Amino acid sequence: MDIKVLDALLKPRSIAVIGASATPGKIGYTVVKNLIDSGYEGKVYPINPKSEEILGFKTYPSVLDVPGEVDMAVFTVPAKFVLDGIEECGKKGAKGLVIITSGFGEVGKTDLEQKMVEVAQQYGMGILGPNIVGVLSNSMKMNASFAPTLPLPGTGALVSQSGALLIAIDMATFTRRVGFDKLVSIGNMSDVEFADLVEWFDQDEDTASISLYIEGLKDGRRFIDMAQKTHKPIIALKSGVSAHGAAAAASHTGSLAGAAKIYGTAFEQAGVIQASTLDNLFDRSLALSLQPPMVGENLLIITNGGGVGVLATDAAERYGIPLKFAPEDVQQELKKYMPEFGSAKNPADLTGIAGADWYEESVRNSYMHPWVNGLTVLYCEVAITEPMDVAQSIKRAIDDSGITDKPITVSFVGGEKTETAMQWLVENGIPAYGDPDAAVNAMAALHEYANLKAKRAPLALAPNGDSKEKAMAIINKVRQDGRDVLTEIEAKKVFEAYHMPVPKCELAATAEEAVSMASAIGYPIVMKIVSPQILHKSDAGGVKVGIENNEECKAAFETIMANAKAYNANANLHGVVIQEMAPWGTEVILGSVNDPTFGPSIMFGLGGIFVEVMKDVTFRVAPINQSQALDMINEIKSAPILKGTRGESPKDIEALSATIANYARMIVDLKDEIDESDANPVIVYDEGDGVSVVDARIILHK
Amino acid sequence: MDIKVLDALLKPRSIAVIGASATPGKIGYTVVKNLIDSGYEGKVYPINPKSEEILGFKTYPSVLDVPGEVDMAVFTVPAKFVLDGIEECGKKGAKGLVIITSGFGEVGKTDLEQKMVEVAQQYGMGILGPNIVGVLSNSMKMNASFAPTLPLPGTGALVSQSGALLIAIDMATFTRRVGFDKLVSIGNMSDVEFADLVEWFDQDEDTASISLYIEGLKDGRRFIDMAQKTHKPIIALKSGVSAHGAAAAASHTGSLAGAAKIYGTAFEQAGVIQASTLDNLFDRSLALSLQPPMVGENLLIITNGGGVGVLATDAAERYGIPLKFAPEDVQQELKKYMPEFGSAKNPADLTGIAGADWYEESVRNSYMHPWVNGLTVLYCEVAITEPMDVAQSIKRAIDDSGITDKPITVSFVGGEKTETAMQWLVENGIPAYGDPDAAVNAMAALHEYANLKAKRAPLALAPNGDSKEKAMAIINKVRQDGRDVLTEIEAKKVFEAYHMPVPKCELAATAEEAVSMASAIGYPIVMKIVSPQILHKSDAGGVKVGIENNEECKAAFETIMANAKAYNANANLHGVVIQEMAPWGTEVILGSVNDPTFGPSIMFGLGGIFVEVMKDVTFRVAPINQSQALDMINEIKSAPILKGTRGESPKDIEALSATIANYARMIVDLKDEIDESDANPVIVYDEGDGVSVVDARIILHK
Repeated sequence: MDIKVLDALLKPRSIAVIGASATPGKIGYTVVKNLIDSGYEGKVYPINPKSEEILGFKTYPSVLDVPGEVDMAVFTVPAKFVLDGIEECGKKGAKGLVIITSGFGEVGKTDLEQKMVEVAQQYGMGILGPNIVGVLSNSMKMNASFAPTLPLPGTGALVSQSGALLIAIDMATFTRRVGFDKLVSIGNMSDVEFADLVEWFDQDEDTASISLYIEGLKDGRRFIDMAQKTHKPIIALKSGVSAHGAAAAASHTGSLAGAAKIYGTAFEQAGVIQASTLDNLFDRSLALSLQPPMVGENLLIITNGGGVGVLATDAAERYGIPLKFAPEDVQQELKKYMPEFGSAKNPADLTGIAGADWYEESVRNSYMHPWVNGLTVLYCEVAITEPMDVAQSIKRAIDDSGITDKPITVSFVGGEKTETAMQWLVENGIPAYGDPDAAVNAMAALHEYANLKAKRAPLALAPNGDSKEKAMAIINKVRQDGRDVLTEIEAKKVFEAYHMPVPKCELAATAEEAVSMASAIGYPIVMKIVSPQILHKSDAGGVKVGIENNEECKAAFETIMANAKAYNANANLHGVVIQEMAPWGTEVILGSVNDPTFGPSIMFGLGGIFVEVMKDVTFRVAPINQSQALDMINEIKSAPILKGTRGESPKDIEALSATIANYARMIVDLKDEIDESDANPVIVYDEGDGVSVVDARIILHK
Repeated sequence: MDIKVLDALLKPRSIAVIGASATPGKIGYTVVKNLIDSGYEGKVYPINPKSEEILGFKTYPSVLDVPGEVDMAVFTVPAKFVLDGIEECGKKGAKGLVIITSGFGEVGKTDLEQKMVEVAQQYGMGILGPNIVGVLSNSMKMNASFAPTLPLPGTGALVSQSGALLIAIDMATFTRRVGFDKLVSIGNMSDVEFADLVEWFDQDEDTASISLYIEGLKDGRRFIDMAQKTHKPIIALKSGVSAHGAAAAASHTGSLAGAAKIYGTAFEQAGVIQASTLDNLFDRSLALSLQPPMVGENLLIITNGGGVGVLATDAAERYGIPLKFAPEDVQQELKKYMPEFGSAKNPADLTGIAGADWYEESVRNSYMHPWVNGLTVLYCEVAITEPMDVAQSIKRAIDDSGITDKPITVSFVGGEKTETAMQWLVENGIPAYGDPDAAVNAMAALHEYANLKAKRAPLALAPNGDSKEKAMAIINKVRQDGRDVLTEIEAKKVFEAYHMPVPKCELAATAEEAVSMASAIGYPIVMKIVSPQILHKSDAGGVKVGIENNEECKAAFETIMANAKAYNANANLHGVVIQEMAPWGTEVILGSVNDPTFGPSIMFGLGGIFVEVMKDVTFRVAPINQSQALDMINEIKSAPILKGTRGESPKDIEALSATIANYARMIVDLKDEIDESDANPVIVYDEGDGVSVVDARIILHK
């Protein structure tokens, strides 16, 4: 989206309020009032044919009557008047339209919504909304919304797909001490969607981090692409992850919530950090907006209470940064600031007698040590040490250290004084939490950010020779045949075009052909009926395995064809596939779906009970490279089976990962053709011996 | 423990402070001052040989000089003076000793700690501590501690094993709006432990619920017994659940943290609800102290914001109470209090235009409907409705409904006004939270409580015939033999004594015996060497399977004995076991450990990769009944394999559950003998065909 459009929506030089009103209580009044109260410094033009003046501003009958330039127009008129208003804004040369008005897609009027976007686009304008609260920005001193106040100032931006939640979050910024620079209500996303805002925030100097409340994305793939390119942390709270919740989300915003599992993996691929709850979104946003990523695995915890120390230690393991014992020199240093009965191991327990001076020394010295990649400081309120003294000591220690590239989080547990001290810490750039678990969880977000950032790779495709042409030739023939299901042999030829190893196989139309093909392939062979009408080949007596010689081959051909005819007299029999008999190994399954939000996505798991009973599978949005395919293999619980366990030799994971990547490539290349597909089973042999796609299935879009 | 001792510790009529001081800053001063400030109405006797008067109280050189009765004595003297003080308290007739003093077990002085308990017990006294903060009780107006103030009043009791955390929690009760009637610091638990306090709280009319911060239990089994008998909800935050955390806990309290997995299952068996974090302990304690259990599965959510509604719906699934659509009549009623574009399904979305009146009507009507088992009400702060109005409407609706046996939880998201409204709700008995997730999680605690309460069964053993005598006869022979490892055949005989089906097997000392035993058992048979010195029988050439007739049997006997002699010339060869050849079925594994906290505990899982790779196992503290054994079978992920999946016939789960219960019985009966044991594999046959313990192993305590 044109950056000027987004500039107009987020940093407008002038604002027209279409439907401004002089009547308190009306949204058209509230928006003008809010612009005044927030101290907006640009021009404000109330538009209302029936008024002369609203809240001291001269009022114009139409936006076309405004003397100056109009950058952004905020719509508060009823839905039926919006279209005309947009037309006028276009003529006036406005860029950004903030459509607060509801009554569009969310009540089924998608046509009107689409028309609105079309008109706006004709004039090069962009639409935020409809069905939104508006846009709020502290750096712009702009409350262009009907939310009551600008949020507590902060350095992050927050976008919410729920308007009610945006208002509630706005007010909660004060009680939770978590500020934001901007709050954006995104509503129906008729035009501007999350990806556009992410792109704009990335270049905005007033935005340090990006927080998203998402019910459903419209174009998931574009979101991933944009998020991957972003240089700032993005954190998302995705709702509608339960079966019932997805239904509830769909009913209330008209958006498609999508499968929770694909969302999770897509966020990871995009380098987007996830929040588990609303509290967690606040907590993690705070850390991400104030602190650098945690690069490395060494978290040090300093505490004055063993209890909170152990709770934080448990949390560190739970959130993926398990503690290690501090190295000897770190321990030696820490021991200077604790009594005999303290512990310097990690957590470093300064004990309840620790004063602010011990906190200061131990924080400064350990923070400066290269072993420490992140520091979480805990404090239980005790009579002998004032919480504010501890807070200030921590801040002083961090400042004195001169270190700015590693993160710190803090948890104080106690009463009013600790609350005040934590507020002071937050105002001074150090995220502080009432629960040790939250402080560690926030550190984990910074750790996840570093790891996701290092791992994310764009969903881009290198040139791939003539695979696609070869595959399309097969698919086109199937289409010409009036079918949308490929036969096994057709599917295998498509897989083969994408460099996936399939057993040697040929289609024999006669017994003579069968014998000659079998001799060429080499015995033993497998023979299977090929017919678009016969899906359950074994049931039809259409499969023979372990054929050893020409005689058996000839006999099998006749039997299979006869069985198939008897099974379904109307079946179109293409012939019998003559297939090399693949030796046995470890079975795995590859599958693909066309996710409604993210498009072609790939599933991987071990075969049989591992998929069916243990649900031990993993997903990725395609394409993926071989290293990402390796990650998939490593993250299933049954991975040790492939790596060689219980005396078995390790399997050819190298070949398997190449096959997974090729498969992902195939479903992306052919996404306009393939509806779903699988390779089930793929046999994985011992290291160096490769893999074999023993059975394949491709179903085309209807 | 004697109830009078606990009465003296928690509801003392008079208190002596041993080591009282006139010097501000000293703990002996703080305790006396706190007793005054909290308004304690019983007698207070400062004891200090060097003072005449402390804070207006006449001071006595020794507790023996006190004119009146002394119910409780609080110790603040250095560790070396404690023993003498206890002796004097005993002579004086005190009952409860609160030993604040540290420097005992936690610094390795376990002897001194034990001596202390011995002396106290001689006089019929009980000890709380040492190494504690003290005891605080709002209903007694008693702050017998060095914590700065009584907590915010509430109806629950909280016990903490960490002193620093207790003080911090004490102060946090005010900022978090979660009150407690009592706070008890339990420290080293030299005498009074969690189980004693649970027992006492159960009969205390001022205690509605029991919250525990546990680092490690001393006698886990007693804790389970006591918790199972309790009529009030118990919630525990167990720290030290991570590998590193357990080490940290051990280093700082000297207590044994135990395996996290066994703790989890033990809490469930005991009917104890678990908290995941400190925040969660506060949140769940609040609900459990104010609301009845949620009996049934139907949770209704009412909201004015779709966003928070979906977040709550996700939470409901996450915490085990997934939403269902409300029945038609409930929906019809709810539709009266929402606009056309609202939704009555569940969550019931009254929409942002909902006023307090709609909240009141929808809450009252749905709360009274028998379908609703629990109600969670959400509110996002909006300009048109005051949070306090909504709060009061909810309260009025609940009161008007006349319903008192189902729970309600509330979440308001917004600013200062919502905080005030939530505070009002809590003061009026309705738990309220700033995060929808927390409100649903609190409801889930009430739901878990109902379910755990219904399921918990005492760890009691019915009489069991002569199993134990039979087993002990075998074990005694092994002991006489100077061994602590049973041979396979001995182990199987012990299993058989406890009615577990083992294949028919006999020990043959000669080839002739072998042949006659084999004929009696019936061919085919398996033959295996029996020698305490030969553990790896196959390696020694000591196993022959599929023996079909007398001739083969005789030959196999000679070969096995010869191989065994060649393998280890010094081995004591008991002979060769002649064993019925069990047909194959589904392999499962049973194992037992003697947990340091909970004693004999049983593990169950499917054999091979399911245990070794997938870690798909489950635990119980033994004994268990057959229905609990069925629960174990049902809760492993691979359970569908036993129930019949992928065309396989269902297995004999009835026989398997009986075997699991018998095995659990065995390890409890023989807990003084068996260190660890397993039955690996146990073959489970088709429904009705039973199970067979194919291999068994028992290792005795050294």
